[in-house]
Amino acid sequence: MRNILLTIEYDGTNYFGWQKQPNKKTIQGVIEDAIKKITGEDVNLVGSGRTDRGVHALGQKANFKTESKIPTEKFPLALNSVLPSDISIKDAAEVSLDFSARYNAKQKTYKYLIYNHKTRPAILRNYVYYFPYDLDIASMQKSCEYFIGEYDFSSFCSSGSETNSKVRRIFDCYLTFENDCIAIYITANGFLYNMARIIAGTILDVGVGRIKPTDIPLIIESKDRTKAGKSLPPWGLYLVDVVY
Amino acid sequence: MRNILLTIEYDGTNYFGWQKQPNKKTIQGVIEDAIKKITGEDVNLVGSGRTDRGVHALGQKANFKTESKIPTEKFPLALNSVLPSDISIKDAAEVSLDFSARYNAKQKTYKYLIYNHKTRPAILRNYVYYFPYDLDIASMQKSCEYFIGEYDFSSFCSSGSETNSKVRRIFDCYLTFENDCIAIYITANGFLYNMARIIAGTILDVGVGRIKPTDIPLIIESKDRTKAGKSLPPWGLYLVDVVY
Repeated sequence: MRNILLTIEYDGTNYFGWQKQPNKKTIQGVIEDAIKKITGEDVNLVGSGRTDRGVHALGQKANFKTESKIPTEKFPLALNSVLPSDISIKDAAEVSLDFSARYNAKQKTYKYLIYNHKTRPAILRNYVYYFPYDLDIASMQKSCEYFIGEYDFSSFCSSGSETNSKVRRIFDCYLTFENDCIAIYITANGFLYNMARIIAGTILDVGVGRIKPTDIPLIIESKDRTKAGKSLPPWGLYLVDVVY
Repeated sequence: MRNILLTIEYDGTNYFGWQKQPNKKTIQGVIEDAIKKITGEDVNLVGSGRTDRGVHALGQKANFKTESKIPTEKFPLALNSVLPSDISIKDAAEVSLDFSARYNAKQKTYKYLIYNHKTRPAILRNYVYYFPYDLDIASMQKSCEYFIGEYDFSSFCSSGSETNSKVRRIFDCYLTFENDCIAIYITANGFLYNMARIIAGTILDVGVGRIKPTDIPLIIESKDRTKAGKSLPPWGLYLVDVVY
């Protein structure tokens, strides 16, 4: 028996999110089917966490246990040969049998892409959030710093979250530019439900002048979801990396 | 009567190229339909040139004549409201009545994106050419310089080209990196049929060591299509800009 950890890229556009659901096409379900095709085994693929419908991943991590004789380094090409083109296994590594991609995750990085141009994108339509209005980038950058630290992030959590403690530590939060977009990167020891998208929405509120960067600590302190910005749509969000 | 010049971005994935064809979805055809919807007029949309099936554009230019009263600056939003999401009008400008987006084009820039990683892309699957083998980037960069100048580019032209003279001037040709890909930019006063894709394929041949950078002048001189590299697939190619 081996425990295999996969690194996975996917385009979430045409999936009902990560988690397996009856009669719905999900990332987990489709990869489990692919594993069955090449190993003959019914496995339970444990992801580092769920991603919502429409959310993308550049480096999702997930592990499964197998009795198959396929060499570990052959899994990416073997799985990619049977997976649809919008999911790609980027890497495979053998890990100890007690390793869990979910419970051993130490930090995750998400990015949110905002397409801030007057007219809508064509090529990036499913991969960025289109926001055509003027933004105060300097204030947005400043606001990012206030998210760094260990706080109760109840204000940045949609209802439906299963976790008890809403305390998370954000190691890094910054704004940069890539691929003609504004990119907001957030690295934390864990994310509450919709947390990355609500933080991005709150930083956008700073950008349009609805709130000030110095309001962020007050919003965190309030533990009141209504004080933070709205949750931006899923198609601008990417799970970039998971660290163990 | 006004003559309107549009700047157009499109995702070529689901189109049979630029040029209107009966019973096939083309960029030109779909935009002409959109213009009819907002002006009521049957126009002839003159593109700067055709792009092949699957080729993308960030800054295609095309003009049409109209009697409509719609203010020029309103055309992008008006057209985008009736166009499918994979085509976007980025700009509109009024030009003189004798202006032709095709005949007045002074230079065009194309880029070709090569995804040079061991495993295939998921998110970029329709937007880059996946090439998993080792490449000698320095030699590829060097080879670019040999394309700059005015030459008969017969070696870099697929049959089916309508033009008589195969002489074109390449103003610039260079390799850079963007969005996790190798990007080859080529700016010329005009492009022969498949010229950008064959130049990219020849630079790739340099990258794998099949030919040397110093072979490029000999290949140009030979005027023999069989001496150059193969034409890379359309989905890695972008019409970036047209200058008048």
